[in-house]
Amino acid sequence: MPAISTKGLNMPPSPIRKLVPFAEAAKQRGVKVIHLNIGQPDIASPEVALNAIRSLDRTVIEYSHSAGYESYRKGLATYYAEHGIKVTADEIIVTNGGSEALLFGMMACFEPGDEVIIPEPFYANYNSFAMAAGVTVVPVRSTIQQGFALPPIEAFEALITKRTKGILICNPGNPTGYLYSRAELETLRDIVQRHDLFLFADEVYREFCYDGAHHVSAMTLEGVEQHVVLIDSVSKRYSMCGARVGAFITRNEDLYAAALKFAQARLSPPTFGQIASEAALRTPASYFTAVVDEYVERRDILVDGLNGIPGVTCPKPKGAFYCVAELPIDDSDHFCQWLLEAFELDGHTVMMAPATGFYAEPASGKRQVRLAYVLEKKLLQRAVAVLAKALEVYPGRRP
Amino acid sequence: MPAISTKGLNMPPSPIRKLVPFAEAAKQRGVKVIHLNIGQPDIASPEVALNAIRSLDRTVIEYSHSAGYESYRKGLATYYAEHGIKVTADEIIVTNGGSEALLFGMMACFEPGDEVIIPEPFYANYNSFAMAAGVTVVPVRSTIQQGFALPPIEAFEALITKRTKGILICNPGNPTGYLYSRAELETLRDIVQRHDLFLFADEVYREFCYDGAHHVSAMTLEGVEQHVVLIDSVSKRYSMCGARVGAFITRNEDLYAAALKFAQARLSPPTFGQIASEAALRTPASYFTAVVDEYVERRDILVDGLNGIPGVTCPKPKGAFYCVAELPIDDSDHFCQWLLEAFELDGHTVMMAPATGFYAEPASGKRQVRLAYVLEKKLLQRAVAVLAKALEVYPGRRP
Repeated sequence: MPAISTKGLNMPPSPIRKLVPFAEAAKQRGVKVIHLNIGQPDIASPEVALNAIRSLDRTVIEYSHSAGYESYRKGLATYYAEHGIKVTADEIIVTNGGSEALLFGMMACFEPGDEVIIPEPFYANYNSFAMAAGVTVVPVRSTIQQGFALPPIEAFEALITKRTKGILICNPGNPTGYLYSRAELETLRDIVQRHDLFLFADEVYREFCYDGAHHVSAMTLEGVEQHVVLIDSVSKRYSMCGARVGAFITRNEDLYAAALKFAQARLSPPTFGQIASEAALRTPASYFTAVVDEYVERRDILVDGLNGIPGVTCPKPKGAFYCVAELPIDDSDHFCQWLLEAFELDGHTVMMAPATGFYAEPASGKRQVRLAYVLEKKLLQRAVAVLAKALEVYPGRRP
Repeated sequence: MPAISTKGLNMPPSPIRKLVPFAEAAKQRGVKVIHLNIGQPDIASPEVALNAIRSLDRTVIEYSHSAGYESYRKGLATYYAEHGIKVTADEIIVTNGGSEALLFGMMACFEPGDEVIIPEPFYANYNSFAMAAGVTVVPVRSTIQQGFALPPIEAFEALITKRTKGILICNPGNPTGYLYSRAELETLRDIVQRHDLFLFADEVYREFCYDGAHHVSAMTLEGVEQHVVLIDSVSKRYSMCGARVGAFITRNEDLYAAALKFAQARLSPPTFGQIASEAALRTPASYFTAVVDEYVERRDILVDGLNGIPGVTCPKPKGAFYCVAELPIDDSDHFCQWLLEAFELDGHTVMMAPATGFYAEPASGKRQVRLAYVLEKKLLQRAVAVLAKALEVYPGRRP
């Protein structure tokens, strides 16, 4: 039997995936599992998008242009202009979700052996795309004490080597929900400029900013127009994770040409998803107002609830729909498994993502978990009650 | 400005893409361009698939399982069983088209620097996926004189080195339409077994076999169950190229686990495309009978027509919907461009794919072109008339 590549095998196993059989077993026992472990919102996709799919008038489902339908890219350019981001349709490649945009970016920018610095805790799949491209992820630590703010410039400088070719940020962030200020982005701009790096900005949660805070896109930074790669997606914006429509955006013509070759090799992004996404551009502003209001209420219930539990710390995020909480526990993998295996309150328990999966060194996340507030308020209230009681009786409780 | 990776830049430019501006210019002049250059059929997608999309009853477009909906994978397993291929739902990963299945296969099987042998002429994008994975493509020549049959076993043996890790075939073939016999597949089986290689079989044209010929899947070969990777797609089968739904299939558990990690990193194949593809499994047999009958008539018009032109040779393929013809010309890139730039017959001209893009060494395809017979018969008749006249007057005609 031929040996297979170590590239796939070496990808770290996801702590969430290890929990799935325990969640299944809990359900088998009749326990209701409240899923705070995944960023799959329960919010309805915009009617205008669903209706475009329902009124499909094509008879042949053809390839689109490899960069995506021109009409959709033009519509996207208008959407970005409305958000203060000046890009043209020719600077956009429509991708199979934000995932493929990340892969194209990693493949097109970096050589195997290059290094990319990512503030941690970070979205675990950044690791996977980096490994696929042979790129080394170098984490720079943000701390819960600082509310997961951007690490100081010195921390970045200390990590830069000859192989450093880029910095990747998620803004607002998964898993922390942290929203970078303009000052923080300008700090990044200075580092990127000084060391001639690419700046990847994953801004798929752009619409989800709270408490009057405004999103600042890396695309608005002056002086690094040739350095910035914007990663985007309709998955969260329109609650259409399954449409698999994202975007790779750059003003750097050489980089665009290189990324387009990867896009051409895979022929086309999905036709149905593009039809839905193009129609979704007509989503009324009231949709987002209602969604943002809903998320603020959910966040407040969850985060305030968590901070009311003795021994729990959870910074209140200004964006996205995640938070990272520090718990008085020995080990978040154990605790999350124990919740599914051995605990219930009135027939309910909670599934969360151990933060071990969001750190380059899993041990760093041993006392933290990520919670996604993508469920209705009643369930979040119940989740807080479950966690409060669970932390009282968990055998691995540590001060 | 940071340097970008050479991976993307080094991907060879597509000879077809270079022709696109000339086709546009011809259309601007009012010339009707008959597109034989791309495998985008004009056949309608099955009603049952389109209706499933039109009657969408979901309100949230969620992620599916990273390996694809279980119900769809079970349906696929039944479809394969009906085609004599025994696989289970757990041996299938639903992908973003056959393209992503190829990428997962290259990434999961091979290390950078490994070699994969591919009979040429071959589908140009095999090169791109190989480059993305850092894999070297080693071509083994099939000849038009032999009708593009499998090269002799000695030709393979002569190319095998320590770094050879796989063989990739397309059956029936793009660009040649050649359908491998069971004897040829058993030859491949022997090589694969002797040298402990992976055998990638791209069988996306399975349904398109003519003149009573039967398709033999690499999945039916005995003794190489752990070596075979089946690449599949609904793109051609149901004329749904834009659905972007394919499949990566292997009975090798370790390989499946490694490929699944790449699938998990990109979260999910497209929901809409899977809904259409699952419904398409109920496409009546009459659909395929009608389509195959139509393609046989189209093939006969095109291939018999080509062979009736003095100096033209075109083996009659038993599968897919392409043929490769040798023409009495100096250079297929020039000829194809000249057709668009400087020739017309009664207001029509023809766009074809220069075969230079299908050989590792472009010069090998200098006197050949690929034609896709994906258009209605009347247009194909006209295309033959255009080519007959064009070859009479082409300044670069060579005996």
